Amino acid sequence: MSKLVIVGTVAFDALETPFGKTDKILGGSASYIGLSASQFKVESAIVSVVGGDFPQSYLDIFSNRGIDISSIEIIKKGKTFFWSGRYHNNMNNRDTLVTELNVLENFQPIVPESYKDAKILVLGNLHPAVQSSVLDQMEEASTLVILDTMNFWMDHTLDALIEVIKRVDVITINDEEARQLTGEHSLVVAAKTIHAMGPEYVVIKKGEHGALLFNEGRMFSAPAMPLESVFDPTGAGDTFAGGFAGFLSQSENVNFESMKKAVIYGSTLASFCVEKFGTERLESLKQEEISQRLKAFKELTQFEIELTS
Amino acid sequence: MSKLVIVGTVAFDALETPFGKTDKILGGSASYIGLSASQFKVESAIVSVVGGDFPQSYLDIFSNRGIDISSIEIIKKGKTFFWSGRYHNNMNNRDTLVTELNVLENFQPIVPESYKDAKILVLGNLHPAVQSSVLDQMEEASTLVILDTMNFWMDHTLDALIEVIKRVDVITINDEEARQLTGEHSLVVAAKTIHAMGPEYVVIKKGEHGALLFNEGRMFSAPAMPLESVFDPTGAGDTFAGGFAGFLSQSENVNFESMKKAVIYGSTLASFCVEKFGTERLESLKQEEISQRLKAFKELTQFEIELTS
Repeated sequence: MSKLVIVGTVAFDALETPFGKTDKILGGSASYIGLSASQFKVESAIVSVVGGDFPQSYLDIFSNRGIDISSIEIIKKGKTFFWSGRYHNNMNNRDTLVTELNVLENFQPIVPESYKDAKILVLGNLHPAVQSSVLDQMEEASTLVILDTMNFWMDHTLDALIEVIKRVDVITINDEEARQLTGEHSLVVAAKTIHAMGPEYVVIKKGEHGALLFNEGRMFSAPAMPLESVFDPTGAGDTFAGGFAGFLSQSENVNFESMKKAVIYGSTLASFCVEKFGTERLESLKQEEISQRLKAFKELTQFEIELTS
Repeated sequence: MSKLVIVGTVAFDALETPFGKTDKILGGSASYIGLSASQFKVESAIVSVVGGDFPQSYLDIFSNRGIDISSIEIIKKGKTFFWSGRYHNNMNNRDTLVTELNVLENFQPIVPESYKDAKILVLGNLHPAVQSSVLDQMEEASTLVILDTMNFWMDHTLDALIEVIKRVDVITINDEEARQLTGEHSLVVAAKTIHAMGPEYVVIKKGEHGALLFNEGRMFSAPAMPLESVFDPTGAGDTFAGGFAGFLSQSENVNFESMKKAVIYGSTLASFCVEKFGTERLESLKQEEISQRLKAFKELTQFEIELTS
């Protein structure tokens, strides 16, 4: 099996949506990416940090899904990164209520020896200098590096962000962030601009409107599955990245065609994520359910038009 | 050839976008619908009204595209409907600067005898009572009726709007309007609610995010073609409706499969509309260009995933 290493946050989230609220539950970018990718035939590890307050039962969730957790550092005297947010009625906007970095503040990820030649590295949303420090540890130029980031780093550490973007193969970024990063309104032009910054592949996530994949003048568009209700959008973007990376890990070739499929798998996984609070839906997700939804994705998007010229 | 009758506005528009501004140019829902549908093998007529100030050269644009203009009433002493708007930098929002109804105020559309058995009737955006009066004139239950409307009528003449919605087969409506009409945020639920109001097919237009087609539990999603620049979004929704109706006019069967193709053709035509001011791009549009863009649409959306179960 191919190796996939995921560097990102493992956290507590407390969420409020129009449908209810939670106390501290399992959250963090690496949690969503890992659980999503665990649906594929891949040997995966999470590199992260938590505090002594982090329950074993949450770690067991990862282990039970076959994820190597030996590189999730536990700082006994520290507290786990905590984020709390409240979604507006439209589910597209949210307010951050609390951000306590805690053990994340001094997080220095260490990639385990056995994963330094991983087929795929996913750099979940973190300080871009920390993301760069992970790249320094990798040993094989053939490792496909997928970077996720957000507007916070554009606002506060733009130079470091530009440095890490230079070094990655794939960037996943949401539409408004792509516009902010490039100053371009057209996503086609924004993707070209980001492409010129380094990444060969640019994936622009549009939330309920799906995702766009760009590569050297080629484009692919995948919708999000239209749903009757979105219960909690937290982690949908990370779940997308996890499905995307998971599919590529087990894919023989990494090229535009496999990336297209990876986008569809990413969208499929993300469509489950939003059905329940936090990681709950991902934890119970079965292969048959994924197959069913892939079928629905095909029906949603595929058409037959004969081209005469 | 099948007959298509289009009832809507023929107007003057004055537009301001970040790229420039126009004096009074050809506008109106029926103009865009007609020009777009004229790309298909169909016998079409526009039913509308203009004033004595409306130039023959604009009428010639329709005639030259094979559109029957004998039901565009010319009120010599009246003035043509005039709308002026200014787009914001993001192109998604616009302010109406001027609306002068003029001859439109007393418009009583009369469907010509030879079109009372048309295969397809498109009711462009108009007062819903006026739209109903057109339906009263049609003679064949087999006529497929496509209705377009907007939030203005929801705000001011909701009862009349609900009455006409009851009587149509297909409604095209934008996402925010679908939400306003139904009070439902989820477009899946909104479409179900509208379906229950009457229309067998519900098309939700999402602007730069494409369109969704709903029919009895089935869904189809088409993206908008991502473009380097959107010069002027005016008329894109009507152009979509025109391409949609034009394709269905020449299609042997009217069912979910042909509707899917119609949505793709609608999106294709709309993607040209926004490339220049007003109807300019539609006037010069060639079949080869449409074929090329359909090919691009296939590349943009089609993928191969083997389903194992």
